Amino acid sequence: MINVCLIGGSGHVGLAFSGSHGRDDIRFTAVAPGSSHENVAWLMPRMKEFGGEPKYYSDYKKMLLTEKPDLVVTDNYFGDHAEVNKAVLESGCHLFAEKPLATSLELLESVQKAFLSAGVQMAAMLNYRARGSFYTAWQMIQSGSIGEIRLLNAQKSYKLGDRPSFMRERKTYGGTLTWVGIHGIDWISWMSGQKFISVTAAQSSLHNHGAGTLEMTALAQFRLTHEVMASLSADYHNPPQAILHGDDRIRIVGTDGVIEVINDTLRLTNRDAAGWQQIACQPDQELFSGFLDQIEGKGICRVSAADSFTATEAAIRAQMSADSAQTISFS
Amino acid sequence: MINVCLIGGSGHVGLAFSGSHGRDDIRFTAVAPGSSHENVAWLMPRMKEFGGEPKYYSDYKKMLLTEKPDLVVTDNYFGDHAEVNKAVLESGCHLFAEKPLATSLELLESVQKAFLSAGVQMAAMLNYRARGSFYTAWQMIQSGSIGEIRLLNAQKSYKLGDRPSFMRERKTYGGTLTWVGIHGIDWISWMSGQKFISVTAAQSSLHNHGAGTLEMTALAQFRLTHEVMASLSADYHNPPQAILHGDDRIRIVGTDGVIEVINDTLRLTNRDAAGWQQIACQPDQELFSGFLDQIEGKGICRVSAADSFTATEAAIRAQMSADSAQTISFS
Repeated sequence: MINVCLIGGSGHVGLAFSGSHGRDDIRFTAVAPGSSHENVAWLMPRMKEFGGEPKYYSDYKKMLLTEKPDLVVTDNYFGDHAEVNKAVLESGCHLFAEKPLATSLELLESVQKAFLSAGVQMAAMLNYRARGSFYTAWQMIQSGSIGEIRLLNAQKSYKLGDRPSFMRERKTYGGTLTWVGIHGIDWISWMSGQKFISVTAAQSSLHNHGAGTLEMTALAQFRLTHEVMASLSADYHNPPQAILHGDDRIRIVGTDGVIEVINDTLRLTNRDAAGWQQIACQPDQELFSGFLDQIEGKGICRVSAADSFTATEAAIRAQMSADSAQTISFS
Repeated sequence: MINVCLIGGSGHVGLAFSGSHGRDDIRFTAVAPGSSHENVAWLMPRMKEFGGEPKYYSDYKKMLLTEKPDLVVTDNYFGDHAEVNKAVLESGCHLFAEKPLATSLELLESVQKAFLSAGVQMAAMLNYRARGSFYTAWQMIQSGSIGEIRLLNAQKSYKLGDRPSFMRERKTYGGTLTWVGIHGIDWISWMSGQKFISVTAAQSSLHNHGAGTLEMTALAQFRLTHEVMASLSADYHNPPQAILHGDDRIRIVGTDGVIEVINDTLRLTNRDAAGWQQIACQPDQELFSGFLDQIEGKGICRVSAADSFTATEAAIRAQMSADSAQTISFS
């Protein structure tokens, strides 16, 4: 039995529940807020669905000491991620963490240092790697369907909706590039198989309907190894009446063809057929379930610790570039 | 009757023929190469289709002096565009010019100077402004369908095919951003209604099948006035079996919705309906025919001289940015 504690519930903590359905090897034992004023009481009934009598702590450090969980899911205010991630790792617990792992390079380094001496497993919630469409795109690239990757265009577009107040302040929110853009950044890293060299980014908070400093639009352009290049576009202007919350896209251009995920479907054009072919996708998986399997030595999680650090670092550097209007190199 | 001479035939001179069909007010009187080793003899039979006995000159300056045309269509090697454009304008002829107008800021300035003292009409072959899909997108933006424009993503993707040898050398080719990217740059300028502030670009000539320095991939990211931003992706990796030669796209994100041209269709998502709506487009027009109408005082060409200079300047600055790996500001 894997005992799981939760710290915070401000992002995608739901992935821990959806990934636990049908499993009898886990139990949610306790929850605590991870940021001041964070409300996590609403998580109690959801935890109970998986059995046991989950406890509520107002102090997550006390919870870690008392409950001694095997695994902790962190999902507090984004600007406070690093602090709780560090505490979890220093307690020797496995970590399933909302992205980004941290919102500054200094904080990220402290999390990485804690991870390297903890001897535990960790994964960030880069959950698109578990989606059938994105995963099948990656598989096709591995099988050579489009040759060598040369160019990638990633798009994230979300509905604004009603955003909680912590997202209206940069200090607690961390920035649109680190919160939304990071997914596209992860796709670029994953699909290209290359390393980031530099990033130039831009952003604007105009027309955000009173959401403080929340950036409504952002662009980032990456240079990668082997003269590969990638663009990322992120915005909160997907209209309320759009069918999907997110208009997520990735277009990957190779020497022998192009593959893209658009409108939640996967399509390919290469020398094998005239025009675009719709590609049948693998079923969606649950990222958290794969992480549990990895802890139990029964499988490999789609997101590694290294993937989690790479995407977070690149997202932070993109954010730094947008904030400073300077190109930022990856040292 | 408008007497038309041609200088060069290395790009889209065909737009002059397709735009002259059904008109009895024009005649093609002569042709000359505009670059050394340029072959334009193949244009003679096409010119004859419109009546008369077109002449061939080996020296375009002699042609201009002897034929005294009303209008000249320039389409020589791209790196030599500025020189012939300047000669045409200094001869006091109207000018319909393959883009870009020039391939360096100094050359562009000399063309602009010649234009300002010539008192003639001119337009660059930014022919997407005459396409129904792109024009209808622009009309919908003008009518407020998506509110204020905040973000634009432009894409140009061409088949490589067999490229002539002059495209394999930067000196005669000018660069992929100035030749292919300029269309996307023009859409960004046109659809946003904003001015360019800076550009950061990247490019790669790898995997170009022996095509010298021809860049196979390029990205450019623009900052515009009012914190509007735009990305441009250009490549020659559209596979041979693709249905269309070009996979041209523009996505325009506004405060009240998103409009895009993709797969040669126009679609819109805003508050008026759930999901994407396909939009019926205006019929395609012929850019050259509109230019003839403008010369005759019967209409307005979809591309103005100012549009032509704006797009060329931005394309040159994007090319400078890619060449230097530096962000380039617009004066």
